[in-house]
Amino acid sequence: MDPSRALNYAREHRPRFVAELKQFLRFPSVSSEPAHSKDIRSCAVWLARHLQNIGLDRVRIIPTRGNPIVYASWLRAAGCPTLIIYGHYDVVSAGPLRAWRTPPFTPTLQNSDLHARGAADDKGQLFAHVKAIESWLSIRHSLPVNVKCIFEGEEEIGGPHLTSFITRNRHTLRADAAVISDTRMLGPGRPAISYAQRGRLRAELKVTGPRHELHSGNFGGAVLSPVQALCEMIALLHDADGHVAVPGFYDDVRQWSEKERLFMRRNGPTDAEVLQDAQVERDWGESEFSLYERTTIRPAVTLNGIVGGHYGSGFKSIIPASATAKVGFRLVPDQEPQKIAQLFRDYIARITPQSVRSSVRTYAPAAPALVDRNDPAIKAAAFAYERGFGSAPAFIRSGGAIPVVNTFQQILGCPAVLMGFGLPDDQIHGPNEKFHLPNFYKAIATSIWYLTAIAKLRNLPRVNRRMESWTE
Amino acid sequence: MDPSRALNYAREHRPRFVAELKQFLRFPSVSSEPAHSKDIRSCAVWLARHLQNIGLDRVRIIPTRGNPIVYASWLRAAGCPTLIIYGHYDVVSAGPLRAWRTPPFTPTLQNSDLHARGAADDKGQLFAHVKAIESWLSIRHSLPVNVKCIFEGEEEIGGPHLTSFITRNRHTLRADAAVISDTRMLGPGRPAISYAQRGRLRAELKVTGPRHELHSGNFGGAVLSPVQALCEMIALLHDADGHVAVPGFYDDVRQWSEKERLFMRRNGPTDAEVLQDAQVERDWGESEFSLYERTTIRPAVTLNGIVGGHYGSGFKSIIPASATAKVGFRLVPDQEPQKIAQLFRDYIARITPQSVRSSVRTYAPAAPALVDRNDPAIKAAAFAYERGFGSAPAFIRSGGAIPVVNTFQQILGCPAVLMGFGLPDDQIHGPNEKFHLPNFYKAIATSIWYLTAIAKLRNLPRVNRRMESWTE
Repeated sequence: MDPSRALNYAREHRPRFVAELKQFLRFPSVSSEPAHSKDIRSCAVWLARHLQNIGLDRVRIIPTRGNPIVYASWLRAAGCPTLIIYGHYDVVSAGPLRAWRTPPFTPTLQNSDLHARGAADDKGQLFAHVKAIESWLSIRHSLPVNVKCIFEGEEEIGGPHLTSFITRNRHTLRADAAVISDTRMLGPGRPAISYAQRGRLRAELKVTGPRHELHSGNFGGAVLSPVQALCEMIALLHDADGHVAVPGFYDDVRQWSEKERLFMRRNGPTDAEVLQDAQVERDWGESEFSLYERTTIRPAVTLNGIVGGHYGSGFKSIIPASATAKVGFRLVPDQEPQKIAQLFRDYIARITPQSVRSSVRTYAPAAPALVDRNDPAIKAAAFAYERGFGSAPAFIRSGGAIPVVNTFQQILGCPAVLMGFGLPDDQIHGPNEKFHLPNFYKAIATSIWYLTAIAKLRNLPRVNRRMESWTE
Repeated sequence: MDPSRALNYAREHRPRFVAELKQFLRFPSVSSEPAHSKDIRSCAVWLARHLQNIGLDRVRIIPTRGNPIVYASWLRAAGCPTLIIYGHYDVVSAGPLRAWRTPPFTPTLQNSDLHARGAADDKGQLFAHVKAIESWLSIRHSLPVNVKCIFEGEEEIGGPHLTSFITRNRHTLRADAAVISDTRMLGPGRPAISYAQRGRLRAELKVTGPRHELHSGNFGGAVLSPVQALCEMIALLHDADGHVAVPGFYDDVRQWSEKERLFMRRNGPTDAEVLQDAQVERDWGESEFSLYERTTIRPAVTLNGIVGGHYGSGFKSIIPASATAKVGFRLVPDQEPQKIAQLFRDYIARITPQSVRSSVRTYAPAAPALVDRNDPAIKAAAFAYERGFGSAPAFIRSGGAIPVVNTFQQILGCPAVLMGFGLPDDQIHGPNEKFHLPNFYKAIATSIWYLTAIAKLRNLPRVNRRMESWTE
């Protein structure tokens, strides 16, 4: 089907599309904070109504034990391929408000950037597909392909209920490909398809000392502060060269061929670009690898947060009763999250000072994932990008985890196509998150093109499709 | 003057005294939190009115650039000595409310303990002297000695304005001795006079990394987390044997004679008692010293708190922009706080990883202090304790800092008498702080006796009084 009228429709309705995205962004659908569970639900209801209004069939808000999944489908393209469109309507917490220049849940346009929590991760990217569907349905009252939208509300907390939902409904959800727009491009005008994601493991490390806070004047020098103990343990997580010091941590890390590393050097960002994206002056870590390699084919242990004792204004002379750190693991083929969790527990037990006790809880394990760069559904995505953005996408690896990639590949047997529309400086998860509106418009166009491109892929070689994956 | 009628009065009015103390404890006079500045003021007004009501003269609320000083005097005992009674009506913050069994500012009686923030530190102890004065004035309309009450509102934040107030008013405030009840006994029925206090220095150590939070998936492995950097720096503050590793830190630490250490062993708590007080199973620190020594004649660096990145419920995949630790120094003769501050700054600058920046701010320096155990005002205190508690006090050293000791000794030239009425398990600065009411009653009796004992000390040898002190 010729997309030109759908493209025209999308162009003409940009102001309304942006206004609707703002509505979507107003919901503080923070999945990590139970206080926001009502906002999550309101956001899901709004999204479902919106999908109904643009003409999708079978719109449902599917309850889970956690946050609901918003599902919608359009399956009238008989004999055509079926595409899953995945996104998530939940967001991470806004964090310290004083760091925001505009209120995180009052979407604000500055130049061509729409600022709000979730603007790029992932409401804006998800919404581009929704508006592409609307453009087709408004113009032709049909889509070039069958579509199944799965918009979850727990991505930012490790999606605890999505996998079981997909497993239970594997027949209903059969598809030829799944497109996921929750990644980023290399820069403005430089689209990218992510063909690899690191895995993940989250750990909470808690050190407990005295039964209750003690006066540090009375006991300082004779009782160990759990803060000090925790810091000393964290200091033992890395050696002086930035390698992870947990014994056995690197045992299963895959060595990549020189050919693959050359491909990465040619397609991925340079060290200077990574530093610029991060807005930091100095790198850190394994100096024998490029920064792109360190953040994609090398695993990492990152301290996400720490708290213990008195941390507000002023001072309090105490030896606190406990201290807690949040530790994030980024894993690569062929590391297994559960094995890494055990290595970490064993090491922590060994390095805990005798004067305190420690405990480790792990959460949200996700295996690393790879997608075949030569899959027809990926090639169709490259074509759509060329049309939508005017340039061919780079094939890159991502440092973050997108566990749903493994879910789609392993449970549904369909390739996961990671078409990112975010920019490196979108500050996802940070203050002043934004979505670049020109990217929103190009993303809609790209999605419009992608629906036609997928439609042309008849008889997709599902059985012989090469898939690589490292969960069982 | 025979105190028996004053003692009887105090005994008869115990229920009212407790009810009044409860009123005093209801004010959340938290000096470290600007939000409580109104409560501080209300508390000062209440205290001043109370002093007026019991018959003290010249009651004044003296403004400072910070919290007001409540002053009251009674100077009609012509030819008699003058006693300063010092206390503080401010308290430390209540800290995590969930750790309290009863609301911190709703004083609650459980068995014989009155639970509230400030119950022991210092409102309850201060109030014992107030009730002793009331007992004398109600019975005889006069006191055995001249009295000057100085109740400050900034003790818990390092008393930034008290010293300048005393310096400016050194002639007005002339006195023969100053009694300070802001310390603790060795246990129930075991009173103690503190003849030494450690000095203090507070430092805030901040590490800054990326300009803003980064996604740890995208950058983990290539950008150093300030939390990790801060922990690694803190781990370098002590060596494996619990000694402080800041170069030069021990240079000025006084070596005490075997005779003094023997005196300490005979009079101070055993290791087992210190552990029991702290309710911890294992000690920590310099194994060549007893726990009592480690907390009195040995300096210490204690981590009071830490915060950085995401520390609430759930997880956030970030590399935070900064992390901050609160570090408390406990100093001993002849360490100088300003010199220690410089050594710390120099060391921190040296051990800061290249990928981050660090800054150090220091606060509330207080030199260590010593009081002559043989001063007549001290001996009078021992006599009063014997009468009030039925047993002679032990002479002990305190681990905490009471900067006002130096202020009284150096600026006013009068000995500071530290008569503590708290118990080791009063949990000052922690949750569920309490004051043991039998100690409140005995403290009132002890204060009643002390006023008569001081009255007998005519012609105090002010000029020849031996004083030891180590600030200039």
